[in-house]
Amino acid sequence: MTTPDAVVNLAHKLSQFNELWTQKKVADLNDYEVKLAKLKGEFVWHTHEDTDELFLVISGRLTIRLRDGDVTLETGELFVVPRGIEHCPVAEEETAILLLEPAGVLNTGDAGGPLTRAAETLD
Amino acid sequence: MTTPDAVVNLAHKLSQFNELWTQKKVADLNDYEVKLAKLKGEFVWHTHEDTDELFLVISGRLTIRLRDGDVTLETGELFVVPRGIEHCPVAEEETAILLLEPAGVLNTGDAGGPLTRAAETLD
Repeated sequence: MTTPDAVVNLAHKLSQFNELWTQKKVADLNDYEVKLAKLKGEFVWHTHEDTDELFLVISGRLTIRLRDGDVTLETGELFVVPRGIEHCPVAEEETAILLLEPAGVLNTGDAGGPLTRAAETLD
Repeated sequence: MTTPDAVVNLAHKLSQFNELWTQKKVADLNDYEVKLAKLKGEFVWHTHEDTDELFLVISGRLTIRLRDGDVTLETGELFVVPRGIEHCPVAEEETAILLLEPAGVLNTGDAGGPLTRAAETLD
């Protein structure tokens, strides 16, 4: 558990998958999960009623649409979507992000639908 | 709360302080805090009995000494020190990190001493 193998190299982890809009868990922090995802295009509007959600852009640019305006994150920027706030991630170019939230939170929140995916663990 | 002002640009935030070994809070995530710190030299051996602690290196290189071996993190790498595991951060060159852990966790954990600092909020 405390071996160098547990070091997470973000670039290497991102090189291990190509699917879009699928969250890949790379670390646990207490009952939270650190996840990576690649995004391109527009996701679905959804809400996480019980938790805030942290987005950190590793490469590319992410717009998080909110009902009262857009927030745009460049590489190296982070933003926390507060619990209960409806949001819709959009990326014009392929964008890589780090997500942080409690374990078990689904990507589509309350919205469900065909894009719903449980997070997968990236070895 | 959901304004673009709440976007955290890591490089900009890091340009706002120079003190070493002082944690600067840049965002809240539920009852967790996202903090930045600049490190150079050797910290103190300490343990957080009740929580894991996430380190992400933004620039530079961080060695986390553990009683059963060192873990070295290059820029773009993260590591979670499990709760109850004694550790000592060391940075040969000035290194910038992002830290994530529950609010109220002190930098020196159980060790205390002159380097103990509560996290400060960075405006």
